[in-house]
Amino acid sequence: MLKDSPKAVLLLSGGLDSTTVLAIAKAAGYHCYALSFDYGQRHGFELEAAAVIAVQASVVAHKTIQLDLGSIGGSALTDASIDVPQAGQSQPVSEGIPVTYVPARNTVFLSLALAWAEVLEAQDIFIGVNAVDYSGYPDCRPEFIEAFASMANLATRAGVEGRQVTIHTPLIAMSKAEIIEVGSALGVDYGLTISCYVADDAGRACGRCDACQLRRGGFEQAGISDPTHYLS
Amino acid sequence: MLKDSPKAVLLLSGGLDSTTVLAIAKAAGYHCYALSFDYGQRHGFELEAAAVIAVQASVVAHKTIQLDLGSIGGSALTDASIDVPQAGQSQPVSEGIPVTYVPARNTVFLSLALAWAEVLEAQDIFIGVNAVDYSGYPDCRPEFIEAFASMANLATRAGVEGRQVTIHTPLIAMSKAEIIEVGSALGVDYGLTISCYVADDAGRACGRCDACQLRRGGFEQAGISDPTHYLS
Repeated sequence: MLKDSPKAVLLLSGGLDSTTVLAIAKAAGYHCYALSFDYGQRHGFELEAAAVIAVQASVVAHKTIQLDLGSIGGSALTDASIDVPQAGQSQPVSEGIPVTYVPARNTVFLSLALAWAEVLEAQDIFIGVNAVDYSGYPDCRPEFIEAFASMANLATRAGVEGRQVTIHTPLIAMSKAEIIEVGSALGVDYGLTISCYVADDAGRACGRCDACQLRRGGFEQAGISDPTHYLS
Repeated sequence: MLKDSPKAVLLLSGGLDSTTVLAIAKAAGYHCYALSFDYGQRHGFELEAAAVIAVQASVVAHKTIQLDLGSIGGSALTDASIDVPQAGQSQPVSEGIPVTYVPARNTVFLSLALAWAEVLEAQDIFIGVNAVDYSGYPDCRPEFIEAFASMANLATRAGVEGRQVTIHTPLIAMSKAEIIEVGSALGVDYGLTISCYVADDAGRACGRCDACQLRRGGFEQAGISDPTHYLS
C-alpha cells in the first residue's frame, strides 16, 4: 500500500456485508480504521468476529465503542422483550419496517464514524448499507445517505474548511449473491463472518432467522460454497 | 399540563443553556424527556447537576447514556493531553474553531436524541445550541441544524410515514444575557447549573475559562445577580 494512501473510517460489525466493504476499501487503496459498536446487540460473538476480521485485514486501528442502545429500546435486536422473527414470521411494526430495525442506528453509527474521521482528518467513511435486501430500513436508502453526507459537511471542521466528507456505500445496490461474489473474488473468508441475529455463544447460526435465510440464499444464488455452521 | 401535550426529547447537559431550553419547552406545553451523556467530559459534576435539574423540572424521564467520546479524542474537553484555555489564551486549532470543540458532538447527541424520539414517537427535539457565543463551532450553526433535520426525516420510521421531526433551537440567535433574562423570567434556578469547563468536585467554577467568562458577562449584562460560586 502506498504511504500516502487516504485514510478511511469503516463501520465493521463482523457481518458479511461490512467485511466485504472492508475488502473493497482495502482493494481501493485506503488505510482503513475500523469502528465497531458494543450497543447491546443480543450476542457478543459478532464483536469477536469483528476483532478477528480487523486483524486479518491489517487495519491501521480497530476501535470498539460501548453504546447502550438497549436502554433506548424499540428493536428486537436490542430489546429482549421483542422476539426476533423466524423465517416467514416477520411481522413488521408498521409500513414494512421490520422489528429488527434499530431506531436511528445508522445515523448514530455514522455520527460516531464522522467524529473519528474528523480527529483522523479522514475524508472517507465506508458503510455496508444495502437497499435491496433491507429495503424496509429507512436508514439504508440512498436518499438517507445523501442527506447524511450533506449534514456531515456542515457539522465538521473539514466541512467548514471546504474539505468534503464522502460516505461510501459500495453495496447499496447489490443483491446478497453479488456481495458474496465480489467479496469472494477479493479473498474474503466468510467463515469468519456472522449474520445470524440469535447466534449461540460459539457463534453458530440458527439457520432460521431472516438474516440466516438471506445469507444462505445469497451463497446458493452465487453458487459459492457456504462456510457457515447452521444449527438447523 | 394537558394530558395530550406533545412529547419532546431534550438534550440536558446541566449547563445554563440546556436548562433554559428545558424551561422554554415546559412553558410551551411539552412533556419533556431529558437526555444526558456521560461522554468522558472532564468532570462528572455536570451530570449530577443535570439529574437535579431534571427532577426539579418534573421531566417525564431522564436518561443518561454512557458514551466514551474520550476514546475518539480531539478535544480539550475529553482529552486530558489538551489544555483547556483560560480567558484570553484561546488558541483555535484552525479557522477559529476552539480546542474545546468536541468533534461531531452535536451530531452524535442529536442522533441519539433522534433514536429515543423514534421509540417514544416524539416529533420534537430541543437542543440549546447558540450561534452567537459559539460561532466557532460548526455544529452550532443554523445551517447544520437544518441539514440535520432533513437527514432525520429520511432516517426514521416517522419520516417514512410522513411525520416530520422538528429540531427546536430556541437559543440559537440569543446572546448569553438574553438567555439568562428569558430563563430568569421562567423561574430557572441558575444556582443549580454549571458552565465551567474545569469545575472542581464540589461543582465550584474556576472563574477564568472561556465558559466562566461568558457566563459571568451574561449575568452582568442582563443586570441579574449571578448565583455562581467562582473560585477566582
